[in-house]
Amino acid sequence: MMELEHVLPADIEKTSFRIIEKELHEMGREIPEDKKHVILRVIHTTADFEYLDTMAFSEEVLQKASDAIRRGAHIVTDTTMAMSGINKRKLASFGGQVHCYIADPDVAGQAKTAGTTRSAAAVDKAIREAEEAGVPLVFAVGNAPTALIALEEKIHQGYRPELVIAVPVGFVNVVPAKERIMATGVPYICNRGRKGGSNVAAAICNAILYNM
Amino acid sequence: MMELEHVLPADIEKTSFRIIEKELHEMGREIPEDKKHVILRVIHTTADFEYLDTMAFSEEVLQKASDAIRRGAHIVTDTTMAMSGINKRKLASFGGQVHCYIADPDVAGQAKTAGTTRSAAAVDKAIREAEEAGVPLVFAVGNAPTALIALEEKIHQGYRPELVIAVPVGFVNVVPAKERIMATGVPYICNRGRKGGSNVAAAICNAILYNM
Repeated sequence: MMELEHVLPADIEKTSFRIIEKELHEMGREIPEDKKHVILRVIHTTADFEYLDTMAFSEEVLQKASDAIRRGAHIVTDTTMAMSGINKRKLASFGGQVHCYIADPDVAGQAKTAGTTRSAAAVDKAIREAEEAGVPLVFAVGNAPTALIALEEKIHQGYRPELVIAVPVGFVNVVPAKERIMATGVPYICNRGRKGGSNVAAAICNAILYNM
Repeated sequence: MMELEHVLPADIEKTSFRIIEKELHEMGREIPEDKKHVILRVIHTTADFEYLDTMAFSEEVLQKASDAIRRGAHIVTDTTMAMSGINKRKLASFGGQVHCYIADPDVAGQAKTAGTTRSAAAVDKAIREAEEAGVPLVFAVGNAPTALIALEEKIHQGYRPELVIAVPVGFVNVVPAKERIMATGVPYICNRGRKGGSNVAAAICNAILYNM
């Protein structure tokens, strides 16, 4: 029978982070200091060291992300899974909220009419509602490349999100959708390639929140 | 600018599954036919082909899982993320519900008193409530090895879940917790090693539900 390690519940996360850093060090790899809190948490969430090589950050994005949260930015996710993984109490302490419009009946109707996905229609609704309320937005996309593509179109029309967390996972249009968002010039945290997920999107949001 | 493929929204999942099978075939690998719906969906959810090598299934577990759902089994998850990823409408069509007790105030209190994790205390509550209601349970554990360890203890005391989906992710006690659940003799779907996650747990539940 495999033995269990005795680690206090409160120390599990800290111990995990230490193991990840130690193993990376043994591979001759170091995580860039300024991005450590994000990359460590993503590896912790996925047990996948590949993220160290594929995560991409725009210039000064972590500073910009913290500033946006401090100014009361809301976070929009493309799935209820990502929404449920984000620490909403921590975000609320800065005045922010998390929204996910994917299950809204008007979003489903709009997608059907426009022949697009609900994820794309949800991006339209998020931007409309935030502009009416005068709220800055962080997008956290862990599932739907079509959400990123809809967002890219809005950005070309002049819309400016505070940050796009571009980590959808999958095999159809995921790679180009990420590349296209990175080419728009908006602040981004991206994971190049096919990997990502709602869990990764939530982990990145929490890493930002816990580092403030 | 990277070009997008034109795939109808309704066809994205089918196309993804086809790409995964094609690439595995090119690597000289095939997915066992009887487990294909589960393994394909997990690779689709993670974009990680490693799952083909690490997923482990107890004897006839998929038949047993379907039977349990048909008899109205409820699903207990260890995170709200996993809960929100499961198709609750589909489960309800067989009479089942999804529960997650992690955020219950009495669970937090019990964990504190017992010096254990909330995940472990939540397993106790799940079993208590299900026994009172006479409901069979499927456990879907995507995060907390301590939930598996608590479950193992209950199994040694005589408790029999219908199925344990044992896919926590992480670096502390995740590997031994999975091995110990597999050694109990209860029906399991497991992912050996460190990888897994709430997304993986939800994907496995949905694969079972969509295949009925």
